[in-house]
Amino acid sequence: MTAMEELPLRPELRGRTPYGAPQLAVRYALNTNENPHPLPAALLADLQVALAEAAQGLNRYPDRDATALRADLAGYLTRTSGEPVTPAMVWAANGSNEVLQQVLQAFGGAGRTALGFTPSYSMHPIITAATGAAWVDGHRRADFTIDPAAATAQLREVRPDVVFVTSPNNPTGTAVDLDTVAALYEATEGVLVVDEAYTEFARKGTVSALSLLPGRPRLIVSRTMSKAFGMAGLRLGYLAADPAVVDALQLVRLPYHLSSLTQAAARTALAHTEQLLDTVDAVKAERDRIVEALPGLGLTSVPSDANFVLFGHFADAAAAWQALLDRGVLVRDVGLPGWLRVTAGTTEETDAFLTALGEIAPGHRTALGG
Amino acid sequence: MTAMEELPLRPELRGRTPYGAPQLAVRYALNTNENPHPLPAALLADLQVALAEAAQGLNRYPDRDATALRADLAGYLTRTSGEPVTPAMVWAANGSNEVLQQVLQAFGGAGRTALGFTPSYSMHPIITAATGAAWVDGHRRADFTIDPAAATAQLREVRPDVVFVTSPNNPTGTAVDLDTVAALYEATEGVLVVDEAYTEFARKGTVSALSLLPGRPRLIVSRTMSKAFGMAGLRLGYLAADPAVVDALQLVRLPYHLSSLTQAAARTALAHTEQLLDTVDAVKAERDRIVEALPGLGLTSVPSDANFVLFGHFADAAAAWQALLDRGVLVRDVGLPGWLRVTAGTTEETDAFLTALGEIAPGHRTALGG
Repeated sequence: MTAMEELPLRPELRGRTPYGAPQLAVRYALNTNENPHPLPAALLADLQVALAEAAQGLNRYPDRDATALRADLAGYLTRTSGEPVTPAMVWAANGSNEVLQQVLQAFGGAGRTALGFTPSYSMHPIITAATGAAWVDGHRRADFTIDPAAATAQLREVRPDVVFVTSPNNPTGTAVDLDTVAALYEATEGVLVVDEAYTEFARKGTVSALSLLPGRPRLIVSRTMSKAFGMAGLRLGYLAADPAVVDALQLVRLPYHLSSLTQAAARTALAHTEQLLDTVDAVKAERDRIVEALPGLGLTSVPSDANFVLFGHFADAAAAWQALLDRGVLVRDVGLPGWLRVTAGTTEETDAFLTALGEIAPGHRTALGG
Repeated sequence: MTAMEELPLRPELRGRTPYGAPQLAVRYALNTNENPHPLPAALLADLQVALAEAAQGLNRYPDRDATALRADLAGYLTRTSGEPVTPAMVWAANGSNEVLQQVLQAFGGAGRTALGFTPSYSMHPIITAATGAAWVDGHRRADFTIDPAAATAQLREVRPDVVFVTSPNNPTGTAVDLDTVAALYEATEGVLVVDEAYTEFARKGTVSALSLLPGRPRLIVSRTMSKAFGMAGLRLGYLAADPAVVDALQLVRLPYHLSSLTQAAARTALAHTEQLLDTVDAVKAERDRIVEALPGLGLTSVPSDANFVLFGHFADAAAAWQALLDRGVLVRDVGLPGWLRVTAGTTEETDAFLTALGEIAPGHRTALGG
């Protein structure tokens, strides 16, 4: 048996382990921010027809440019944001991970630098490294918000080629205001990626960075159908940006990267947007119920615009994680001392989570900073 | 309107154009080596059921390790090659392009070198560049075969980290004998990727490099379901190698890269392997018919083990390409002076191609080297 270390592996990969939350068989899987609501019956019926039709042409390569899908995505963004997003401004790939990988291949890569405000989506530094660029941790305040003055000063000093800002942030949950995004854009000569994977769950009054696109050709807003649309298994991420950015991504995308089935299923789901997003309000209500229950358990949370809550504070987050798992509730240990992240889903899930949390809180909670 | 050049694009991408054959609406599309035979009705019926079932769980992330699919692929390789291929030796991704990209991210990348024997699959150098490694053209003889002595000498001199050998080669069509593959392996300390995308079409007696895997942990055999399986629209590429190679690829793969629909459809297709591969013999017969008709038209071809034929010789291949397109037949100008590549498909397609070729040959053909 050969050990991985005996292979001519890139040196920086040696000793690493694969990324990923445990895929455990557990009653309440509240660790990957999936949408637990079943897909609407009308969508499932339409998917059956659309996929069977697409299957008939599977011997042919898919539309390499995903033209019809990009038009549908542009329509969705225009309708929901009020901003005029054209198909030429939209690009799609297998999950926002692949979208971001293509951005890094075009604008990052060897000899270049990417910066993101950690703690944030943990794939940002991983994809950055896999595509050869250096990673720099951006600063956040102790309450996990971004200080615009400190952040812009850091951008001017580091001069990164790619900047990530996640809004709402994952794993902390809070959206970033547009003045901050605009200030970050002014402070960098690189591309600024606003990762809006969770934006559909934002609290009232939150405005998408799509509204900043006019006149900002280095701004990229990335989205996904995995969260609010409840289509994590489909793997469909996308972005909106200046058409020149989309042209650039077509230089690095693998040809025919999006299968005919993916394109057909995503288009069918987009035709059911209203119904699909019906679950968003229900999920937000569960999130708020979690937030409101925490103080009664001697716990607190970070303000959330997402379908998850970062909650604490625990003396030993890993021990609290295990105690919850022992009660059939799988949450995410995101590596932030004292904090855990829980996905908001159905009422039953919230009940089970809060019950388990009530049992373990007395033995695991501690004062913030304690 | 912003020009791409105004963006902070990587310097080596400036002035490039996206890869890809024209996706033209034409009666006879013989340019991308698709399988023109419709999928069997029994498979389509099973796909409808399997995809509808998978759709019901689309709100959940797919199996990140594609465990069941890899077991099915291992079973297929074992049955057809007689070599014991285990699931731990198999990895799959969205097309062999993504498989190869992952190989390059793990074993190539910045500061490293990949070598392939050009002319060959044109994505090898493109993916190599996109992942930051340098590319070196390997030598071939004038008849497009690989000279083992010259090739091994070149490997010892260049010391590449990744070596590609395409067998059967694309776009020339000829399989590489296993003695040569074994000699290439001995001559490099890097990983050797044998790209067997077209191997199911090989002439009788051709043996897969799978038989060389035991005791060669740096050997990778890549395959695809796009060609013989007739599933180009599915985007399913895979490889077999030492389990340590698969471990390494899991360090660079994007998590959840293979959608639930892709995994379900590929497994369903593999359950219909025999029926799907029924078309292979028909396609090979058409290929051989093309090869045998060429001398009568004053033309020649390179020996083909694939579902395509490299044919010539033309005074001006681009002009001959256009003359065929004017007659409704789209073939591939692969950039080899004097040569064009045509996909072998149905009897009707061969008839149309040979008719058009008969019309244009007198005005375009020239003696080899002429």
